[in-house]
Amino acid sequence: MLHFENDYNKGAHPKLLQALIETNNQAQAGYGMDEYSQQAAEKIKQACACPQAEVTFLTGGTQTNQVVIDSMLSSYEGVIAAESGHVAVHEAGAIEFTGHKVLTLPTEDGKIDSTQLEDYLSDFYADGNHEHMVFPGMVYISHPTEYGTLYSKAELEALSKVCRAYSIPLFLDGARLGYGLASKESDLDLKAIAELTDVFYIGGTKLGALMGEAVVFTKSNQPKHFTTVVKQHGALLAKGRLCGVQFDAFFTDDLYLEIGRETLALAEQLKAILKEKGYRFYLDSPTNQQFIIIENHKLESLAKQVAYSFWEKYDDNHTVIRLAVSWSTTQEDIDALKVIL
Amino acid sequence: MLHFENDYNKGAHPKLLQALIETNNQAQAGYGMDEYSQQAAEKIKQACACPQAEVTFLTGGTQTNQVVIDSMLSSYEGVIAAESGHVAVHEAGAIEFTGHKVLTLPTEDGKIDSTQLEDYLSDFYADGNHEHMVFPGMVYISHPTEYGTLYSKAELEALSKVCRAYSIPLFLDGARLGYGLASKESDLDLKAIAELTDVFYIGGTKLGALMGEAVVFTKSNQPKHFTTVVKQHGALLAKGRLCGVQFDAFFTDDLYLEIGRETLALAEQLKAILKEKGYRFYLDSPTNQQFIIIENHKLESLAKQVAYSFWEKYDDNHTVIRLAVSWSTTQEDIDALKVIL
Amino acid sequence: MLHFENDYNKGAHPKLLQALIETNNQAQAGYGMDEYSQQAAEKIKQACACPQAEVTFLTGGTQTNQVVIDSMLSSYEGVIAAESGHVAVHEAGAIEFTGHKVLTLPTEDGKIDSTQLEDYLSDFYADGNHEHMVFPGMVYISHPTEYGTLYSKAELEALSKVCRAYSIPLFLDGARLGYGLASKESDLDLKAIAELTDVFYIGGTKLGALMGEAVVFTKSNQPKHFTTVVKQHGALLAKGRLCGVQFDAFFTDDLYLEIGRETLALAEQLKAILKEKGYRFYLDSPTNQQFIIIENHKLESLAKQVAYSFWEKYDDNHTVIRLAVSWSTTQEDIDALKVIL
Amino acid sequence: MLHFENDYNKGAHPKLLQALIETNNQAQAGYGMDEYSQQAAEKIKQACACPQAEVTFLTGGTQTNQVVIDSMLSSYEGVIAAESGHVAVHEAGAIEFTGHKVLTLPTEDGKIDSTQLEDYLSDFYADGNHEHMVFPGMVYISHPTEYGTLYSKAELEALSKVCRAYSIPLFLDGARLGYGLASKESDLDLKAIAELTDVFYIGGTKLGALMGEAVVFTKSNQPKHFTTVVKQHGALLAKGRLCGVQFDAFFTDDLYLEIGRETLALAEQLKAILKEKGYRFYLDSPTNQQFIIIENHKLESLAKQVAYSFWEKYDDNHTVIRLAVSWSTTQEDIDALKVIL
Repeated sequence: MLHFENDYNKGAHPKLLQALIETNNQAQAGYGMDEYSQQAAEKIKQACACPQAEVTFLTGGTQTNQVVIDSMLSSYEGVIAAESGHVAVHEAGAIEFTGHKVLTLPTEDGKIDSTQLEDYLSDFYADGNHEHMVFPGMVYISHPTEYGTLYSKAELEALSKVCRAYSIPLFLDGARLGYGLASKESDLDLKAIAELTDVFYIGGTKLGALMGEAVVFTKSNQPKHFTTVVKQHGALLAKGRLCGVQFDAFFTDDLYLEIGRETLALAEQLKAILKEKGYRFYLDSPTNQQFIIIENHKLESLAKQVAYSFWEKYDDNHTVIRLAVSWSTTQEDIDALKVIL
Repeated sequence: MLHFENDYNKGAHPKLLQALIETNNQAQAGYGMDEYSQQAAEKIKQACACPQAEVTFLTGGTQTNQVVIDSMLSSYEGVIAAESGHVAVHEAGAIEFTGHKVLTLPTEDGKIDSTQLEDYLSDFYADGNHEHMVFPGMVYISHPTEYGTLYSKAELEALSKVCRAYSIPLFLDGARLGYGLASKESDLDLKAIAELTDVFYIGGTKLGALMGEAVVFTKSNQPKHFTTVVKQHGALLAKGRLCGVQFDAFFTDDLYLEIGRETLALAEQLKAILKEKGYRFYLDSPTNQQFIIIENHKLESLAKQVAYSFWEKYDDNHTVIRLAVSWSTTQEDIDALKVIL
Repeated sequence: MLHFENDYNKGAHPKLLQALIETNNQAQAGYGMDEYSQQAAEKIKQACACPQAEVTFLTGGTQTNQVVIDSMLSSYEGVIAAESGHVAVHEAGAIEFTGHKVLTLPTEDGKIDSTQLEDYLSDFYADGNHEHMVFPGMVYISHPTEYGTLYSKAELEALSKVCRAYSIPLFLDGARLGYGLASKESDLDLKAIAELTDVFYIGGTKLGALMGEAVVFTKSNQPKHFTTVVKQHGALLAKGRLCGVQFDAFFTDDLYLEIGRETLALAEQLKAILKEKGYRFYLDSPTNQQFIIIENHKLESLAKQVAYSFWEKYDDNHTVIRLAVSWSTTQEDIDALKVIL
Repeated sequence: MLHFENDYNKGAHPKLLQALIETNNQAQAGYGMDEYSQQAAEKIKQACACPQAEVTFLTGGTQTNQVVIDSMLSSYEGVIAAESGHVAVHEAGAIEFTGHKVLTLPTEDGKIDSTQLEDYLSDFYADGNHEHMVFPGMVYISHPTEYGTLYSKAELEALSKVCRAYSIPLFLDGARLGYGLASKESDLDLKAIAELTDVFYIGGTKLGALMGEAVVFTKSNQPKHFTTVVKQHGALLAKGRLCGVQFDAFFTDDLYLEIGRETLALAEQLKAILKEKGYRFYLDSPTNQQFIIIENHKLESLAKQVAYSFWEKYDDNHTVIRLAVSWSTTQEDIDALKVIL
């Protein structure tokens, strides 16, 4: 069976696993006060060219979104997101669980457009009744998006400008950030992201960590008593070293970006194969996830050889499926898939 | 100045005020245990022909929606509502504040359609990922809707049938229920509403009470320890008699429906005047609120003589405004308005 | 039957009822924007000699405590209260419902002592583990307390000083404030309370309003978008005039204090009668509630003539009961009670 | 430096680390659907002799307590705990964050007594006012407690009996369960715990896992849609295998208990050394944590050679410190400590 169902079906990247093995017998302080977490934070700050950044490690994407959004919003505020945003659809209401509404904007490709955002915000304040409504208190975007698409630097600048005009923070969910940074079609690097957003996270789980996401507050704006807030959300790990060691490895010798680049090289091969074989794309994704529209009757035989993921029904006879290349995909996997497709 | 801005700009209907005056010096038990609350509950049960009904009085619409929805949903469930529903837009996130998502369906006229609901529910369970999503745990409709429109009996039966098929309760927000029941275009009475819904409320504030809404659980399904739940939401009134006495008056000699009928007779006059004078309707409302599209340049002079409410921008040159007839509107008000329009 | 069971068993004080009747037909803006609410707020600011005060009207004590505490605390903070405090015991968890812990201090008489508070706060910050604990973010006191006792000015100054040293607000629950202000044993007036606290509320329900409590933020510290916060808690009344008109009457010609004084004159008579007749006091209350320890076998016959409230079991043979004098108690009631006791 | 500060200062037990290495390259389903999680659950059910048990893996103790308590309680219910309970003191309000009060009982040794519990419950229902109070909906105990003490089988049976009489579940927090099971002074095994409680968790983090706790619902009482509830709390791990593999190793060849036994053998040596050297015990702990009262002036020099943890101030001249033996402690550590003490 070839595994293209997602980017988290294997354990850890060999270098991360090695780092865990090597540090296993060291005594370290708990709750994120260990040397590795501190060191990883320093390396991330350097990689972002953002000396004032404050870095915290959490265990998963939904948890990270919940903690960041809840801790940055006032009680009367909600978070703006694309209607396809992970926080809007696939987090089982984790944002509402903390008392906040997700204010959704329509989207075709998973992205929010700055004009659309500006319109939403100006309409909100123009409404005489807005004191009876949820205030837009933050903007959430994912990069890459749930559809694998990317913001250009110009697009992110435009969003950032609108957010600043309305004094609301811009939060970038980077669950798959490494795959975005490594895309040939992207002109955004960590430095630009740190500059243009108010908070973002660097996804570990989908890039080869056992678990772990690095939250980066970029404007000296980390919420007060953040450790306590994290604890209160049930998100403080006793052995914080587990994240620290892995992120320290990710940010040693540029490994994080290197993993992204290697994966995207394979993803581009896959995209070329799909094109060559005449598959119909659901949309044009420049990252590690490829979405194709496939005849329903072909699904069963494909499923016998390739694990893929069902995305959505396209029409009565077709289905959108996702093929995800990941840090654990090999050249052999791609070659074998080429034969099958 | 003529007052058509809303249906809550005056104090209490004379008969309700009289009842408050007459009972003022009686000693009564607190927290809803007074005789009048008990008696009003009995009268409501009779009016609904629903002997097993459980009736509780709360103070306002948003509070009622919050308490009912939060107490009926499991933590992993959200409430389905039209995108224009009061709970979705104008309650400052009171539903999300209690941890629940409002799952919105598109609408043109403020109503949810049973086919649309059925599609939403079947799609939800068809999605392989639905364990990562908010479960639809309840359906919220308003009757009359925020646009003044009404469900027919057939429409309510169809919605009720879908809800029962999926074992989720149907909740009807009757903030303006009296105006709906009295509409000539409605074939729904209290008995049918009690039968077809699982819980609904009879709005007092907009029908002439100082404050107060009567929640009716119709299927022996009032949440356990409901008084405690109400208290926990900060919604338990020490002098519950205040609601009890007013609702007792509402349901004596059919006053509640009578108020609705008198108001709607004036509302029909208003509608006829608007038609006659060539005003453009935003939509066809059979109840006490009329929505018209008016040229922006006419708004200022109108505002000098008539208090109306801004509804929404229609286009660059036109605005939708609402004229609300209410229990306190008089024939003189209508006659005077006719001259001005 | 004589009614001494509580201070909310009658409707409204005649002057408040009169004011409601007189203003009933006036058209007023909704949601607290009516003239009476504005005017009442001004009068309260003057009575408090606190021109920067911000005044909002809510409907009940638990609701008020919930809204004030939740809106002033950060998510990682709890509120300090005496273990007998209303918020700690008799609000069905309304504070925890909004995510905040009530941090209790032991008490004998319902009061918190400044030394005890200072110790609690210094111990908290001395604990190396305090990042894993709920931060003390506010101090809640009731005045009169649940036991009818009062803080002296010196005691309130001392509490205030500790709160300021730790930069946490002091909140005074004045559900029965009028009875405290009018006590001969009290040296605290509204001006001193406004100066020494950061927020307090002036209880209406128990002083003769149909419902209503006036929240006063005294340090230009009303939480941002407070109307929205109130709405979100389900606590915004459409006909805010109901509170406005009543509080306007309370603060016209010193009525609020006058009601307090008249009631306390009767309460002092009751206390003298109880002493004279040899009843054993549970504690020495200088306000409208008197607590006596009574033999169990006497309870039944007493209950046939006097409505009182059970307070707590004292021992196997005795019970603590409460007799509450109120704004609606008459000289005749006291005289009749004297005969019975 | 000798490490006795806590039981989570090293990485993973060698056998767990080995299992992670061996399974690292296997493709596994996400979100707890992997083979190892399934297999570990089966082994735990067997170890508990509880075929109907439902097992879920979470990442940390506070998270586990939060998810279990919140998902089992109704909104109007709180959880009873000893005043020293982890949920009451050191979880930053994680329980209140989900809307529930922690109802505390006084304790000397970290345990709740069945008579005390019975009294609390009967008093609650005897209080005429209990509808205005938080209902006791669950009992939380920790075993070993925060003081290292243990319940006997008879004590647990008595607690269990009271809980059943009042139809409320008994929840046992087993963050250090392995050290309790292995104590010579304990007559409780997994089977008895599964029988006498309604839900409990088997702590991994403090017994040698990188992270992970196994929640066991023992009475076919796992809350509905528990995966969704876990997700909503931000607690669902994408690579659930991480817990599955480690718990599979824990429950292979009795490793979990073996780790407990080896640790306790060293803990007993430590206890003997402390006695022999004349140290004063704060209380008598039969498990891996020993608490001693030490003169303040000795702390500094001790801290240069031994990492211990500050527990609490004993008096002006003495401090209670904790020495924790753990799965990673060696005979050499104990021998070296003996020389220093």
